[in-house]
Amino acid sequence: MGRRAHSKGIEQETAGGVGLEAQPDFVAGFARGLKVIRAFGENSHMLTLSQVAERSGLTAAGARRLLLTLVTLGYAGTKDRFYFLTPRILSLGYSYLTSLPLYHFAQPILEELVEKTGETCAVGVLDDVDVVYVLRIPVRRIASGDFGIGTRRPAHATSMGRILLGHLNERELADYFERADLRAYTGTTVTDPKLLRQRIKEDREQGYSWITGEMAEHVSGLSVPIIGEDSRVNSAINISFNRPKISSNEVLREYLPPLRDAADQIHRSLMLRDRSMADRPTRLKG
Amino acid sequence: MGRRAHSKGIEQETAGGVGLEAQPDFVAGFARGLKVIRAFGENSHMLTLSQVAERSGLTAAGARRLLLTLVTLGYAGTKDRFYFLTPRILSLGYSYLTSLPLYHFAQPILEELVEKTGETCAVGVLDDVDVVYVLRIPVRRIASGDFGIGTRRPAHATSMGRILLGHLNERELADYFERADLRAYTGTTVTDPKLLRQRIKEDREQGYSWITGEMAEHVSGLSVPIIGEDSRVNSAINISFNRPKISSNEVLREYLPPLRDAADQIHRSLMLRDRSMADRPTRLKG
Repeated sequence: MGRRAHSKGIEQETAGGVGLEAQPDFVAGFARGLKVIRAFGENSHMLTLSQVAERSGLTAAGARRLLLTLVTLGYAGTKDRFYFLTPRILSLGYSYLTSLPLYHFAQPILEELVEKTGETCAVGVLDDVDVVYVLRIPVRRIASGDFGIGTRRPAHATSMGRILLGHLNERELADYFERADLRAYTGTTVTDPKLLRQRIKEDREQGYSWITGEMAEHVSGLSVPIIGEDSRVNSAINISFNRPKISSNEVLREYLPPLRDAADQIHRSLMLRDRSMADRPTRLKG
Repeated sequence: MGRRAHSKGIEQETAGGVGLEAQPDFVAGFARGLKVIRAFGENSHMLTLSQVAERSGLTAAGARRLLLTLVTLGYAGTKDRFYFLTPRILSLGYSYLTSLPLYHFAQPILEELVEKTGETCAVGVLDDVDVVYVLRIPVRRIASGDFGIGTRRPAHATSMGRILLGHLNERELADYFERADLRAYTGTTVTDPKLLRQRIKEDREQGYSWITGEMAEHVSGLSVPIIGEDSRVNSAINISFNRPKISSNEVLREYLPPLRDAADQIHRSLMLRDRSMADRPTRLKG
Protein backbone atom coordinates (compact mmCIF):
# COMPACT_ATOMS: atom_id res chain seq x y z
CA MET A 1 0.00 0.00 0.00
CA GLY A 2 2.96 2.33 0.41
CA ARG A 3 1.12 4.07 3.22
CA ARG A 4 2.76 2.42 6.15
CA ALA A 5 6.25 3.04 4.90
CA HIS A 6 5.73 6.76 5.41
CA SER A 7 5.17 7.54 9.00
CA LYS A 8 5.79 9.68 11.99
CA GLY A 9 9.28 8.26 11.93
CA ILE A 10 10.05 9.99 8.67
CA GLU A 11 8.33 13.18 9.71
CA GLN A 12 10.52 13.34 12.78
CA GLU A 13 13.68 13.09 10.74
CA THR A 14 12.98 16.54 9.37
CA ALA A 15 13.08 18.04 12.83
CA GLY A 16 16.81 18.51 12.46
CA GLY A 17 16.25 20.60 9.33
CA VAL A 18 17.91 18.14 6.98
CA GLY A 19 16.58 15.26 4.98
CA LEU A 20 13.21 15.62 3.30
CA GLU A 21 13.51 19.23 2.26
CA ALA A 22 16.56 18.41 0.19
CA GLN A 23 14.66 15.85 -1.94
CA PRO A 24 13.99 17.19 -5.41
CA ASP A 25 10.28 16.22 -5.43
CA PHE A 26 9.46 17.60 -2.00
CA VAL A 27 7.49 20.87 -1.94
CA ALA A 28 8.69 22.34 1.34
CA GLY A 29 6.18 25.23 1.34
CA PHE A 30 3.32 22.75 1.18
CA ALA A 31 4.71 20.60 4.00
CA ARG A 32 5.27 23.65 6.20
CA GLY A 33 1.75 24.87 5.46
CA LEU A 34 0.27 21.59 6.68
CA LYS A 35 2.28 21.97 9.91
CA VAL A 36 0.76 25.41 10.38
CA ILE A 37 -2.75 23.94 10.11
CA ARG A 38 -1.86 21.29 12.68
CA ALA A 39 -0.56 23.92 15.09
CA PHE A 40 -4.19 24.68 15.90
CA GLY A 41 -6.08 22.29 18.13
CA GLU A 42 -7.42 21.76 21.60
CA ASN A 43 -7.53 24.98 23.62
CA SER A 44 -5.94 26.82 20.73
CA HIS A 45 -8.76 28.34 18.76
CA MET A 46 -6.93 31.67 18.47
CA LEU A 47 -3.15 31.73 18.14
CA THR A 48 -0.73 34.59 17.68
CA LEU A 49 1.87 34.50 14.94
CA SER A 50 4.62 33.63 17.39
CA GLN A 51 2.58 30.79 18.91
CA VAL A 52 2.01 29.31 15.44
CA ALA A 53 5.70 29.68 14.59
CA GLU A 54 6.75 27.99 17.83
CA ARG A 55 4.29 25.11 17.55
CA SER A 56 5.13 24.39 13.93
CA GLY A 57 8.88 24.89 14.27
CA LEU A 58 9.01 27.65 11.66
CA THR A 59 10.41 31.15 11.57
CA ALA A 60 7.91 33.95 12.26
CA ALA A 61 8.33 35.24 8.70
CA GLY A 62 7.66 31.80 7.22
CA ALA A 63 4.66 31.15 9.46
CA ARG A 64 3.27 34.58 8.60
CA ARG A 65 3.31 33.96 4.84
CA LEU A 66 1.62 30.57 5.29
CA LEU A 67 -1.04 32.03 7.60
CA LEU A 68 -1.74 34.85 5.15
CA THR A 69 -2.08 32.27 2.36
CA LEU A 70 -4.65 30.39 4.46
CA VAL A 71 -6.50 33.67 5.15
CA THR A 72 -6.51 34.60 1.46
CA LEU A 73 -8.02 31.22 0.55
CA GLY A 74 -10.62 31.40 3.33
CA TYR A 75 -9.16 28.52 5.39
CA ALA A 76 -8.21 30.87 8.22
CA GLY A 77 -9.30 34.23 9.58
CA THR A 78 -7.58 36.89 11.57
CA LYS A 79 -8.78 39.19 14.33
CA ASP A 80 -6.60 41.67 16.16
CA ARG A 81 -3.28 39.85 16.48
CA PHE A 82 -4.81 36.37 16.45
CA TYR A 83 -5.30 33.77 13.73
CA PHE A 84 -7.96 31.04 13.71
CA LEU A 85 -9.05 28.26 11.33
CA THR A 86 -12.42 28.49 9.54
CA PRO A 87 -14.86 25.64 8.83
CA ARG A 88 -13.49 25.47 5.28
CA ILE A 89 -10.58 23.45 6.72
CA LEU A 90 -13.09 20.62 7.22
CA SER A 91 -13.36 20.27 3.44
CA LEU A 92 -9.84 18.80 3.42
CA GLY A 93 -10.76 15.95 5.76
CA TYR A 94 -14.07 15.62 4.01
CA SER A 95 -12.25 14.82 0.75
CA TYR A 96 -10.93 11.75 2.47
CA LEU A 97 -14.17 10.70 4.13
CA THR A 98 -16.32 11.01 1.02
CA SER A 99 -13.67 9.21 -1.00
CA LEU A 100 -13.86 6.19 1.36
CA PRO A 101 -15.94 3.51 -0.35
CA LEU A 102 -17.61 2.53 2.91
CA TYR A 103 -18.45 6.06 4.00
CA HIS A 104 -21.71 6.34 2.10
CA PHE A 105 -23.50 3.19 3.08
CA ALA A 106 -21.83 2.23 6.35
CA GLN A 107 -23.72 4.90 8.29
CA PRO A 108 -27.24 3.37 8.11
CA ILE A 109 -25.76 -0.05 8.95
CA LEU A 110 -23.98 1.44 11.96
CA GLU A 111 -27.15 3.25 13.03
CA GLU A 112 -29.09 0.01 12.93
CA LEU A 113 -26.39 -1.62 15.05
CA VAL A 114 -26.64 1.21 17.60
CA GLU A 115 -30.40 0.76 17.70
CA LYS A 116 -30.08 -3.00 18.20
CA THR A 117 -27.38 -2.85 20.84
CA GLY A 118 -28.07 0.44 22.57
CA GLU A 119 -24.30 0.99 22.72
CA THR A 120 -21.80 3.33 21.08
CA CYS A 121 -20.58 1.92 17.75
CA ALA A 122 -17.78 3.00 15.43
CA VAL A 123 -15.83 2.17 12.28
CA GLY A 124 -12.08 2.74 12.37
CA VAL A 125 -9.00 2.45 10.19
CA LEU A 126 -5.33 2.22 11.04
CA ASP A 127 -3.08 5.22 10.41
CA ASP A 128 0.50 4.56 11.35
CA VAL A 129 0.34 3.37 14.99
CA ASP A 130 -3.12 4.74 15.76
CA VAL A 131 -6.70 3.79 15.09
CA VAL A 132 -8.63 6.67 13.50
CA TYR A 133 -12.43 6.76 13.76
CA VAL A 134 -14.08 7.43 10.39
CA LEU A 135 -17.63 6.89 11.59
CA ARG A 136 -18.91 6.86 15.14
CA ILE A 137 -22.38 6.96 16.63
CA PRO A 138 -22.32 7.68 20.34
CA VAL A 139 -24.86 6.66 22.91
CA ARG A 140 -25.27 9.07 25.74
CA ARG A 141 -23.70 7.99 29.02
CA ILE A 142 -22.37 9.86 31.94
CA ALA A 143 -18.68 10.48 31.35
CA SER A 144 -18.68 9.11 27.81
CA GLY A 145 -15.65 10.30 25.88
CA ASP A 146 -16.52 13.39 23.86
CA PHE A 147 -14.82 12.44 20.65
CA GLY A 148 -15.91 12.12 17.05
CA ILE A 149 -14.64 11.52 13.56
CA GLY A 150 -10.90 11.94 13.19
CA THR A 151 -10.14 11.01 16.79
CA ARG A 152 -7.06 8.85 17.27
CA ARG A 153 -6.42 6.13 19.79
CA PRO A 154 -3.21 4.10 20.20
CA ALA A 155 -3.70 0.79 18.40
CA HIS A 156 -2.14 -1.42 21.09
CA ALA A 157 -4.69 -0.62 23.78
CA THR A 158 -7.90 -0.78 21.72
CA SER A 159 -9.86 -3.71 20.29
CA MET A 160 -10.05 -2.08 16.84
CA GLY A 161 -6.30 -1.62 16.90
CA ARG A 162 -5.67 -5.30 17.67
CA ILE A 163 -7.93 -6.37 14.81
CA LEU A 164 -6.27 -3.99 12.35
CA LEU A 165 -2.75 -4.90 13.46
CA GLY A 166 -3.69 -8.57 12.98
CA HIS A 167 -4.22 -7.96 9.28
CA LEU A 168 -0.90 -6.32 8.56
CA ASN A 169 1.75 -8.37 6.81
CA GLU A 170 4.95 -9.38 8.64
CA ARG A 171 6.98 -6.43 7.39
CA GLU A 172 4.24 -3.94 8.31
CA LEU A 173 3.83 -5.45 11.77
CA ALA A 174 7.60 -5.37 12.41
CA ASP A 175 7.49 -1.73 11.33
CA TYR A 176 4.66 -1.12 13.82
CA PHE A 177 6.57 -2.60 16.73
CA GLU A 178 9.61 -0.55 15.82
CA ARG A 179 7.73 2.75 16.06
CA ALA A 180 4.81 2.32 18.43
CA ASP A 181 4.97 3.76 21.92
CA LEU A 182 3.52 0.85 23.92
CA ARG A 183 2.71 2.83 27.00
CA ALA A 184 0.41 1.73 29.83
CA TYR A 185 -2.84 3.66 30.15
CA THR A 186 -4.13 1.58 33.05
CA GLY A 187 -2.74 -1.15 35.25
CA THR A 188 -3.81 -3.79 32.71
CA THR A 189 -2.62 -2.31 29.39
CA VAL A 190 -0.54 -4.90 27.53
CA THR A 191 2.81 -3.21 26.95
CA ASP A 192 5.07 -6.21 26.47
CA PRO A 193 5.71 -6.58 22.70
CA LYS A 194 5.84 -10.37 22.87
CA LEU A 195 2.55 -10.65 24.73
CA LEU A 196 0.94 -8.04 22.48
CA ARG A 197 2.01 -10.01 19.37
CA GLN A 198 0.42 -13.10 20.86
CA ARG A 199 -2.84 -11.28 21.65
CA ILE A 200 -2.97 -9.85 18.12
CA LYS A 201 -2.51 -13.35 16.71
CA GLU A 202 -5.17 -14.87 18.99
CA ASP A 203 -7.64 -12.14 18.11
CA ARG A 204 -7.01 -12.68 14.42
CA GLU A 205 -7.61 -16.40 14.79
CA GLN A 206 -10.84 -16.02 16.75
CA GLY A 207 -12.12 -13.25 14.43
CA TYR A 208 -12.85 -10.69 17.11
CA SER A 209 -11.08 -8.68 19.77
CA TRP A 210 -12.45 -8.05 23.24
CA ILE A 211 -10.50 -5.64 25.39
CA THR A 212 -11.52 -4.38 28.77
CA GLY A 213 -9.97 -1.59 30.79
CA GLU A 214 -6.67 -1.32 28.88
CA MET A 215 -7.28 2.12 27.38
CA ALA A 216 -9.29 3.49 30.32
CA GLU A 217 -10.80 1.97 33.46
CA HIS A 218 -14.42 0.85 32.98
CA VAL A 219 -14.18 1.13 29.17
CA SER A 220 -14.41 -2.03 27.10
CA GLY A 221 -14.53 -2.66 23.38
CA LEU A 222 -15.55 -5.47 21.06
CA SER A 223 -14.31 -5.29 17.44
CA VAL A 224 -14.48 -7.40 14.30
CA PRO A 225 -12.78 -6.89 10.93
CA ILE A 226 -14.55 -5.46 7.85
CA ILE A 227 -13.43 -7.34 4.76
CA GLY A 228 -12.93 -4.84 1.94
CA GLU A 229 -13.83 -5.27 -1.73
CA ASP A 230 -10.22 -6.34 -2.37
CA SER A 231 -10.56 -9.10 0.30
CA ARG A 232 -8.21 -7.20 2.55
CA VAL A 233 -9.03 -5.85 6.00
CA ASN A 234 -8.45 -2.11 6.17
CA SER A 235 -11.19 -1.21 8.62
CA ALA A 236 -12.86 -2.61 11.71
CA ILE A 237 -16.23 -2.10 13.37
CA ASN A 238 -16.65 -1.76 17.09
CA ILE A 239 -19.06 -1.53 20.01
CA SER A 240 -17.78 0.20 23.10
CA PHE A 241 -19.07 -0.10 26.62
CA ASN A 242 -18.62 2.44 29.33
CA ARG A 243 -19.50 0.50 32.48
CA PRO A 244 -17.66 -0.53 35.62
CA LYS A 245 -18.46 -4.25 35.27
CA ILE A 246 -19.37 -6.22 32.21
CA SER A 247 -19.17 -9.97 31.64
CA SER A 248 -17.27 -11.31 28.69
CA ASN A 249 -19.82 -14.11 28.24
CA GLU A 250 -22.73 -11.70 28.04
CA VAL A 251 -20.88 -9.51 25.54
CA LEU A 252 -19.95 -12.37 23.23
CA ARG A 253 -23.45 -13.87 23.37
CA GLU A 254 -25.43 -10.66 22.93
CA TYR A 255 -23.21 -8.32 20.98
CA LEU A 256 -20.93 -10.42 18.78
CA PRO A 257 -23.72 -11.70 16.45
CA PRO A 258 -25.18 -8.25 15.55
CA LEU A 259 -21.65 -6.83 15.23
CA ARG A 260 -20.71 -9.59 12.77
CA ASP A 261 -23.96 -9.02 10.85
CA ALA A 262 -23.13 -5.34 10.48
CA ALA A 263 -19.57 -6.12 9.29
CA ASP A 264 -21.01 -8.62 6.77
CA GLN A 265 -23.54 -6.12 5.48
CA ILE A 266 -20.84 -3.52 4.95
CA HIS A 267 -18.70 -6.13 3.19
CA ARG A 268 -21.56 -7.12 0.89
CA SER A 269 -22.32 -3.47 0.08
CA LEU A 270 -18.65 -2.93 -0.79
CA MET A 271 -18.70 -5.95 -3.12
CA LEU A 272 -21.91 -4.80 -4.82
CA ARG A 273 -20.55 -1.31 -5.24
CA ASP A 274 -17.31 -2.65 -6.67
CA ARG A 275 -19.24 -4.64 -9.26
CA SER A 276 -21.43 -1.68 -10.20
CA MET A 277 -18.37 0.59 -10.44
CA ALA A 278 -16.81 -1.87 -12.89
CA ASP A 279 -19.72 -1.25 -15.26
CA ARG A 280 -19.06 2.47 -15.29
CA PRO A 281 -16.75 4.21 -17.74
CA THR A 282 -13.13 4.37 -16.57
CA ARG A 283 -13.16 8.14 -16.59
CA LEU A 284 -14.33 9.14 -13.12
CA LYS A 285 -16.90 11.87 -12.93
CA GLY A 286 -15.72 15.32 -11.83
CA MET B 1 -13.84 38.59 11.61
CA GLY B 2 -12.01 38.91 8.32
CA ARG B 3 -13.31 35.48 7.40
CA ARG B 4 -16.08 36.52 5.11
CA ALA B 5 -13.95 38.89 3.11
CA HIS B 6 -12.03 35.90 1.77
CA SER B 7 -14.32 33.71 -0.18
CA LYS B 8 -15.01 31.58 -3.19
CA GLY B 9 -15.05 34.82 -5.16
CA ILE B 10 -11.38 35.38 -4.51
CA GLU B 11 -10.49 31.75 -5.06
CA GLN B 12 -12.10 31.85 -8.47
CA GLU B 13 -10.07 34.85 -9.53
CA THR B 14 -6.99 32.67 -9.48
CA ALA B 15 -8.46 30.42 -12.16
CA GLY B 16 -7.00 32.71 -14.79
CA GLY B 17 -3.56 32.18 -13.34
CA VAL B 18 -3.04 35.78 -12.32
CA GLY B 19 -3.78 37.69 -9.15
CA LEU B 20 -3.09 35.88 -5.90
CA GLU B 21 0.08 34.11 -6.93
CA ALA B 22 1.72 37.44 -7.67
CA GLN B 23 1.17 38.67 -4.11
CA PRO B 24 4.41 38.72 -2.15
CA ASP B 25 2.96 36.95 0.92
CA PHE B 26 1.20 34.18 -0.97
CA VAL B 27 2.84 30.73 -0.84
CA ALA B 28 1.70 29.30 -4.18
CA GLY B 29 3.02 25.78 -3.51
CA PHE B 30 0.89 25.57 -0.36
CA ALA B 31 -2.26 26.80 -2.14
CA ARG B 32 -1.74 24.33 -5.00
CA GLY B 33 -1.18 21.50 -2.50
CA LEU B 34 -4.53 22.22 -0.84
CA LYS B 35 -6.16 22.04 -4.29
CA VAL B 36 -4.59 18.62 -4.79
CA ILE B 37 -6.15 17.40 -1.52
CA ARG B 38 -9.54 18.70 -2.61
CA ALA B 39 -9.26 16.90 -5.96
CA PHE B 40 -10.17 13.73 -4.06
CA GLY B 41 -13.78 13.20 -3.09
CA GLU B 42 -16.94 11.34 -3.86
CA ASN B 43 -16.31 8.37 -6.18
CA SER B 44 -12.66 9.29 -6.39
CA HIS B 45 -10.88 7.23 -3.80
CA MET B 46 -8.08 6.41 -6.24
CA LEU B 47 -6.95 8.96 -8.82
CA THR B 48 -4.21 8.85 -11.42
CA LEU B 49 -1.72 11.67 -11.70
CA SER B 50 -3.44 13.08 -14.76
CA GLN B 51 -6.85 13.01 -13.04
CA VAL B 52 -5.42 14.93 -10.08
CA ALA B 53 -3.76 17.43 -12.42
CA GLU B 54 -6.97 17.98 -14.38
CA ARG B 55 -9.18 18.33 -11.31
CA SER B 56 -6.87 20.76 -9.58
CA GLY B 57 -5.97 22.75 -12.69
CA LEU B 58 -2.24 22.05 -12.35
CA THR B 59 0.43 20.72 -14.67
CA ALA B 60 1.22 17.03 -14.34
CA ALA B 61 4.74 17.83 -13.12
CA GLY B 62 3.39 20.22 -10.47
CA ALA B 63 0.69 17.79 -9.32
CA ARG B 64 3.25 14.98 -9.13
CA ARG B 65 5.57 16.87 -6.78
CA LEU B 66 2.66 17.82 -4.51
CA LEU B 67 1.35 14.23 -4.46
CA LEU B 68 4.81 12.88 -3.63
CA THR B 69 5.07 15.42 -0.81
CA LEU B 70 1.75 14.16 0.59
CA VAL B 71 2.98 10.56 0.28
CA THR B 72 6.27 11.37 2.03
CA LEU B 73 4.38 12.95 4.94
CA GLY B 74 1.90 10.05 5.18
CA TYR B 75 -1.15 12.08 4.06
CA ALA B 76 -1.45 10.07 0.84
CA GLY B 77 -0.51 6.65 -0.44
CA THR B 78 0.19 5.25 -3.86
CA LYS B 79 -0.56 1.89 -5.44
CA ASP B 80 0.19 0.99 -9.05
CA ARG B 81 -0.47 4.21 -10.93
CA PHE B 82 -3.06 5.50 -8.43
CA TYR B 83 -2.90 7.92 -5.53
CA PHE B 84 -5.25 7.98 -2.54
CA LEU B 85 -5.60 10.00 0.68
CA THR B 86 -4.90 8.36 4.05
CA PRO B 87 -6.79 8.91 7.33
CA ARG B 88 -4.04 11.28 8.43
CA ILE B 89 -5.75 13.94 6.28
CA LEU B 90 -8.52 13.96 8.90
CA SER B 91 -6.08 15.46 11.38
CA LEU B 92 -6.25 18.72 9.40
CA GLY B 93 -10.01 19.08 9.83
CA TYR B 94 -9.69 17.80 13.37
CA SER B 95 -7.44 20.76 14.22
CA TYR B 96 -10.41 22.96 13.46
CA LEU B 97 -13.01 20.87 15.27
CA THR B 98 -11.05 20.47 18.49
CA SER B 99 -10.18 24.16 18.42
CA LEU B 100 -13.90 25.08 18.39
CA PRO B 101 -14.90 26.13 21.91
CA LEU B 102 -18.27 24.43 21.62
CA TYR B 103 -16.95 21.17 20.25
CA HIS B 104 -16.11 19.55 23.57
CA PHE B 105 -19.29 20.07 25.54
CA ALA B 106 -21.91 20.51 22.83
CA GLN B 107 -22.00 16.78 22.06
CA PRO B 108 -23.63 15.56 25.32
CA ILE B 109 -26.15 18.42 25.07
CA LEU B 110 -26.95 17.45 21.48
CA GLU B 111 -27.24 13.79 22.46
CA GLU B 112 -29.72 14.68 25.18
CA LEU B 113 -31.71 16.68 22.64
CA VAL B 114 -31.77 13.70 20.26
CA GLU B 115 -32.96 11.49 23.11
CA LYS B 116 -35.72 13.95 24.05
CA THR B 117 -36.93 14.61 20.52
CA GLY B 118 -36.17 11.35 18.73
CA GLU B 119 -35.08 13.40 15.71
CA THR B 120 -31.81 14.14 13.93
CA CYS B 121 -30.06 17.14 15.52
CA ALA B 122 -27.05 19.17 14.43
CA VAL B 123 -24.88 22.19 15.15
CA GLY B 124 -23.74 24.26 12.18
CA VAL B 125 -21.66 27.31 11.34
CA LEU B 126 -21.61 29.55 8.29
CA ASP B 127 -18.70 29.31 5.85
CA ASP B 128 -19.01 31.74 2.99
CA VAL B 129 -22.46 31.04 1.48
CA ASP B 130 -22.88 27.57 3.01
CA VAL B 131 -23.81 26.08 6.33
CA VAL B 132 -21.22 23.56 7.51
CA TYR B 133 -22.17 20.91 10.06
CA VAL B 134 -19.68 20.67 12.91
CA LEU B 135 -21.69 18.21 15.00
CA ARG B 136 -24.56 16.03 13.90
CA ILE B 137 -26.35 13.10 15.49
CA PRO B 138 -28.54 11.25 13.04
CA VAL B 139 -31.65 9.26 13.78
CA ARG B 140 -32.19 6.31 11.52
CA ARG B 141 -34.89 6.80 8.93
CA ILE B 142 -35.48 5.30 5.57
CA ALA B 143 -33.83 7.57 2.99
CA SER B 144 -32.19 9.78 5.59
CA GLY B 145 -29.34 11.79 4.10
CA ASP B 146 -26.05 10.00 4.64
CA PHE B 147 -24.00 12.99 5.65
CA GLY B 148 -21.88 13.88 8.62
CA ILE B 149 -19.47 16.44 9.93
CA GLY B 150 -18.09 18.76 7.28
CA THR B 151 -21.12 18.47 5.02
CA ARG B 152 -22.20 21.72 3.37
CA ARG B 153 -25.66 22.93 2.53
CA PRO B 154 -26.54 26.20 0.77
CA ALA B 155 -27.51 28.73 3.43
CA HIS B 156 -30.55 30.18 1.64
CA ALA B 157 -32.55 26.93 1.60
CA THR B 158 -31.88 25.73 5.16
CA SER B 159 -33.20 26.88 8.53
CA MET B 160 -29.68 27.00 10.02
CA GLY B 161 -28.59 29.16 7.10
CA ARG B 162 -31.41 31.65 7.65
CA ILE B 163 -30.54 31.96 11.33
CA LEU B 164 -26.83 32.45 10.63
CA LEU B 165 -27.46 34.96 7.81
CA GLY B 166 -29.73 36.89 10.19
CA HIS B 167 -26.78 37.55 12.47
CA LEU B 168 -24.43 38.96 9.85
CA ASN B 169 -23.92 42.70 9.74
CA GLU B 170 -25.18 44.77 6.78
CA ARG B 171 -21.90 44.65 4.87
CA GLU B 172 -21.53 40.89 5.37
CA LEU B 173 -25.12 40.29 4.26
CA ALA B 174 -24.68 42.45 1.13
CA ASP B 175 -21.55 40.42 0.41
CA TYR B 176 -23.56 37.21 0.80
CA PHE B 177 -26.21 38.32 -1.68
CA GLU B 178 -23.53 39.33 -4.14
CA ARG B 179 -21.98 35.87 -4.21
CA ALA B 180 -24.66 33.32 -3.31
CA ASP B 181 -26.20 31.17 -5.98
CA LEU B 182 -29.87 31.35 -4.95
CA ARG B 183 -30.96 28.33 -6.90
CA ALA B 184 -34.25 26.46 -6.48
CA TYR B 185 -33.94 22.93 -5.08
CA THR B 186 -37.69 22.33 -4.99
CA GLY B 187 -40.76 24.20 -6.20
CA THR B 188 -40.89 26.15 -2.94
CA THR B 189 -37.27 27.26 -2.44
CA VAL B 190 -37.14 31.01 -1.87
CA THR B 191 -34.86 32.35 -4.61
CA ASP B 192 -35.99 35.98 -4.79
CA PRO B 193 -33.35 38.06 -2.93
CA LYS B 194 -35.91 40.56 -1.64
CA LEU B 195 -38.19 37.85 -0.24
CA LEU B 196 -35.21 35.98 1.20
CA ARG B 197 -34.01 39.13 2.99
CA GLN B 198 -37.46 39.52 4.47
CA ARG B 199 -37.57 35.89 5.66
CA ILE B 200 -34.12 36.23 7.22
CA LYS B 201 -35.29 39.34 9.07
CA GLU B 202 -38.53 37.70 10.27
CA ASP B 203 -36.62 34.64 11.49
CA ARG B 204 -34.18 36.81 13.37
CA GLU B 205 -37.02 38.70 15.04
CA GLN B 206 -38.90 35.57 16.10
CA GLY B 207 -35.70 33.85 17.25
CA TYR B 208 -36.12 30.66 15.24
CA SER B 209 -36.33 29.50 11.65
CA TRP B 210 -38.74 26.85 10.41
CA ILE B 211 -38.30 25.74 6.81
CA THR B 212 -40.16 22.96 5.12
CA GLY B 213 -39.46 21.41 1.73
CA GLU B 214 -37.14 24.12 0.37
CA MET B 215 -33.95 22.05 0.32
CA ALA B 216 -35.63 18.73 -0.47
CA GLU B 217 -39.24 17.54 -0.58
CA HIS B 218 -40.41 16.07 2.75
CA VAL B 219 -37.42 17.47 4.64
CA SER B 220 -38.04 20.18 7.24
CA GLY B 221 -35.79 21.94 9.71
CA LEU B 222 -36.17 23.98 12.87
CA SER B 223 -33.17 26.05 13.98
CA VAL B 224 -32.31 28.53 16.73
CA PRO B 225 -29.15 30.60 17.25
CA ILE B 226 -26.39 29.70 19.74
CA ILE B 227 -25.14 32.85 21.45
CA GLY B 228 -21.36 32.64 21.75
CA GLU B 229 -19.19 33.72 24.66
CA ASP B 230 -18.60 37.04 22.85
CA SER B 231 -22.42 37.60 22.65
CA ARG B 232 -22.25 37.02 18.89
CA VAL B 233 -24.07 34.29 16.98
CA ASN B 234 -21.60 32.17 15.01
CA SER B 235 -23.42 28.86 15.20
CA ALA B 236 -26.94 27.48 15.21
CA ILE B 237 -28.56 24.29 16.47
CA ASN B 238 -31.11 22.36 14.50
CA ILE B 239 -33.62 19.50 14.47
CA SER B 240 -34.43 18.04 11.09
CA PHE B 241 -37.48 16.04 10.11
CA ASN B 242 -37.67 13.65 7.22
CA ARG B 243 -41.43 13.13 6.82
CA PRO B 244 -43.97 13.87 4.10
CA LYS B 245 -46.30 15.90 6.32
CA ILE B 246 -45.57 17.70 9.51
CA SER B 247 -47.56 20.47 11.17
CA SER B 248 -45.88 23.72 12.03
CA ASN B 249 -47.97 24.04 15.20
CA GLU B 250 -46.89 20.64 16.45
CA VAL B 251 -43.24 21.38 15.72
CA LEU B 252 -43.24 24.73 17.49
CA ARG B 253 -45.09 23.37 20.49
CA GLU B 254 -43.12 20.14 20.94
CA TYR B 255 -39.68 20.82 19.55
CA LEU B 256 -38.95 24.53 19.98
CA PRO B 257 -38.73 24.42 23.83
CA PRO B 258 -36.15 21.57 24.04
CA LEU B 259 -34.21 23.09 21.12
CA ARG B 260 -34.03 26.44 22.95
CA ASP B 261 -33.01 24.69 26.16
CA ALA B 262 -30.13 22.97 24.35
CA ALA B 263 -28.98 26.27 22.78
CA ASP B 264 -29.12 27.92 26.23
CA GLN B 265 -27.14 25.13 27.82
CA ILE B 266 -24.43 25.43 25.17
CA HIS B 267 -24.37 29.20 25.66
CA ARG B 268 -24.00 28.84 29.41
CA SER B 269 -21.20 26.28 29.00
CA LEU B 270 -19.41 28.68 26.65
CA MET B 271 -19.69 31.49 29.20
CA LEU B 272 -18.40 29.30 32.02
CA ARG B 273 -15.51 28.10 29.91
CA ASP B 274 -14.65 31.65 28.93
CA ARG B 275 -14.50 32.65 32.57
CA SER B 276 -12.36 29.67 33.55
CA MET B 277 -10.03 30.28 30.58
CA ALA B 278 -9.52 33.85 31.80
CA ASP B 279 -8.02 32.46 35.01
CA ARG B 280 -5.41 30.47 33.10
CA PRO B 281 -1.99 31.81 32.19
CA THR B 282 -1.88 33.62 28.82
CA ARG B 283 0.63 31.16 27.44
CA LEU B 284 -1.45 28.37 25.85
CA LYS B 285 -0.40 24.84 26.53
CA GLY B 286 1.37 22.96 23.72
